[in-house]
Amino acid sequence: PRKLKSMVINFTRSIKKIGQDDPRRVIHSLKVAIALTLVSMFYYSRPLYDSLGVAGMWAVLTVVVVFEFTVGATLSKGINRGCATLLAGALGVGGQHLATAFGERAEPIVLGTLVFILAAGSTFFRFFPKIKARYDYGMVIFILTFCLVTVSGYRVEQLFELAHQRLSTILIGVATCMVISIFICPVWAGEDLHKLVASNIEKLANYLEGFEAEYFHSSEDKQKPEKSVLEGYKSILNSKASEESLANLARWEPGHGAFRLRHPWKQYLKIGALTRECAYKIETLNNYLNPEIQASLEFKCKVQEACKKMSSESNKALKAISSSVKTMTDPSGAKSHVETSKVAVKDLKVALEIMTLEDIELLAIIPVATVAAILEEITKSVE
Amino acid sequence: PRKLKSMVINFTRSIKKIGQDDPRRVIHSLKVAIALTLVSMFYYSRPLYDSLGVAGMWAVLTVVVVFEFTVGATLSKGINRGCATLLAGALGVGGQHLATAFGERAEPIVLGTLVFILAAGSTFFRFFPKIKARYDYGMVIFILTFCLVTVSGYRVEQLFELAHQRLSTILIGVATCMVISIFICPVWAGEDLHKLVASNIEKLANYLEGFEAEYFHSSEDKQKPEKSVLEGYKSILNSKASEESLANLARWEPGHGAFRLRHPWKQYLKIGALTRECAYKIETLNNYLNPEIQASLEFKCKVQEACKKMSSESNKALKAISSSVKTMTDPSGAKSHVETSKVAVKDLKVALEIMTLEDIELLAIIPVATVAAILEEITKSVE
Repeated sequence: PRKLKSMVINFTRSIKKIGQDDPRRVIHSLKVAIALTLVSMFYYSRPLYDSLGVAGMWAVLTVVVVFEFTVGATLSKGINRGCATLLAGALGVGGQHLATAFGERAEPIVLGTLVFILAAGSTFFRFFPKIKARYDYGMVIFILTFCLVTVSGYRVEQLFELAHQRLSTILIGVATCMVISIFICPVWAGEDLHKLVASNIEKLANYLEGFEAEYFHSSEDKQKPEKSVLEGYKSILNSKASEESLANLARWEPGHGAFRLRHPWKQYLKIGALTRECAYKIETLNNYLNPEIQASLEFKCKVQEACKKMSSESNKALKAISSSVKTMTDPSGAKSHVETSKVAVKDLKVALEIMTLEDIELLAIIPVATVAAILEEITKSVE
Repeated sequence: PRKLKSMVINFTRSIKKIGQDDPRRVIHSLKVAIALTLVSMFYYSRPLYDSLGVAGMWAVLTVVVVFEFTVGATLSKGINRGCATLLAGALGVGGQHLATAFGERAEPIVLGTLVFILAAGSTFFRFFPKIKARYDYGMVIFILTFCLVTVSGYRVEQLFELAHQRLSTILIGVATCMVISIFICPVWAGEDLHKLVASNIEKLANYLEGFEAEYFHSSEDKQKPEKSVLEGYKSILNSKASEESLANLARWEPGHGAFRLRHPWKQYLKIGALTRECAYKIETLNNYLNPEIQASLEFKCKVQEACKKMSSESNKALKAISSSVKTMTDPSGAKSHVETSKVAVKDLKVALEIMTLEDIELLAIIPVATVAAILEEITKSVE
């Protein structure tokens, strides 16, 4: 019983944590529940049941499968489902007619061949990267509906009525999902992407700040940087997949807030890629925080001035860029910082030329500074 | 018409390319088509139709949704679907009984409340990272089936017969998928993971080889390294997501070939992480191939010897590790190379101490060499 108790406690703790990490998750769960209950209620009310019949369950099925966390994902799935069902339904009816023309005996064979060809074809198309990213779900529904229509059409005589019922129930499901996901506490993929990119740049800036303090012990009056600051950049290294999927979903979303319908989402991917490149460099730089690596103190003192300037200026530049991404303004504030850090790079080069070099880790900052410069230039192109 | 023609040509080209990149894709498409046609045929044959009725379409639905590219994914989805349907079906029947006990008037209200609670709960659970990775699909099917059972149970009186039909058709679908995916040209996620990890290490080795030739122009007798060799490592940088999903899927697979049932898939993730770390360093190193960066030739000559040795020895060590991962043998061959490269690192340090340093890019090789050493130690723990 003790073990059970600790398990229960752990369990409730992880529930709390997941809810607190992102309160929108709780709201999302409630939204799904509302949508499902609404759709089930359709089913319970006698007049609606009489007109839709057993097909009503398709509305339930649609809600469960289509309702996703972000508005973009819900819209993309809903639209995919709707269009694919229409298209496949039409083709299915066509195939049905074709098959009947061959006579009763050949009918199953013709239908089987059609199913085989279309299934193989659409499964293969799902491997196309572009289709995979945007219409994968539509392809699945397409095969599904086509098979169902040809298969059930062979038995059920009132094909058109069936198709009509199915379509209208799917539309009910999709519409419920869309309305609820857009109008009740919407979670916009575009906004998430926007915030993610801005916060990633900020993480880089924080890291540089922390690095400066940690490596040069320059801020003994301030407290030591926390571990979390120095490890924040690690999440950027693997952010590519989530950024790409968010950008894909953002494309489906209508205009909202500060974002127009055709917001240049691809620019975010470019900034994201540059941020990642910068993070790779920081990863290399981070190795030199390892206390086992001995550096001559004398040398450290000599380059300290220039390096500190470089890292603090690039840090400020990154922060300026991050906030300008957030507010979608021109990052002119960052420019001056980048200029100053470029001067610092030159200073360092001069300092290096006149002395012997033993530890080279500081120079790893140079690429960071230069990347900051590139970053800034790209950011300008976004607005 | 011209534009159309070039579009068609482009289209056929990309079809060819996708097929040639991985011929298993074509086979997979055919497998799905076979499974679907088989299941539809069940439906066409009168005796089976009479016993299963309209529920037969659930078999079609199951095949379309469950059949995935790798065996692991198919098994995971199939088992998830089967278990979730069983559990949700039982709970649904229970909920139904409970609701009837409250009288005819309260019934829809009780059922609605139940649907609401379960839908909100299971949607929330899908946010747990562990559940998301392994049982996400099961959760969806769970909500789906529960809603369908309670909703349709309210109307259709023969609940048990319905449940029985649905379960048996889903089992038919799942079994068809599993048999076809395991016995006809199986695509094992575990094997893919194994090959991916080994080839990633090999890419690193190739890069080092190419870097040596490119940077020191040491191999003017050989041809210049191709661009593709020097860019191969870039795909490693973002390999985390695919490695993790493959490892998750591999866990569902039965033993096959050289892999036992409980193969230590997590070890592959560790090796993968180390490979990525190494790739981050190479990314930094790669910047110095930029011809715009001037390095003093004199200095280059001095360190050339040690650096060449370092990179060629780590390259050999990486190749030895990669082939030992491939064949799952002890990487003893790599050890000696790592030792030699460590000696080279020491040589370089000595060389550096006695001279002025102007360009420091070569030292970026040091971490690569040391990472190679760590890599080797970890690889030993796998076998």
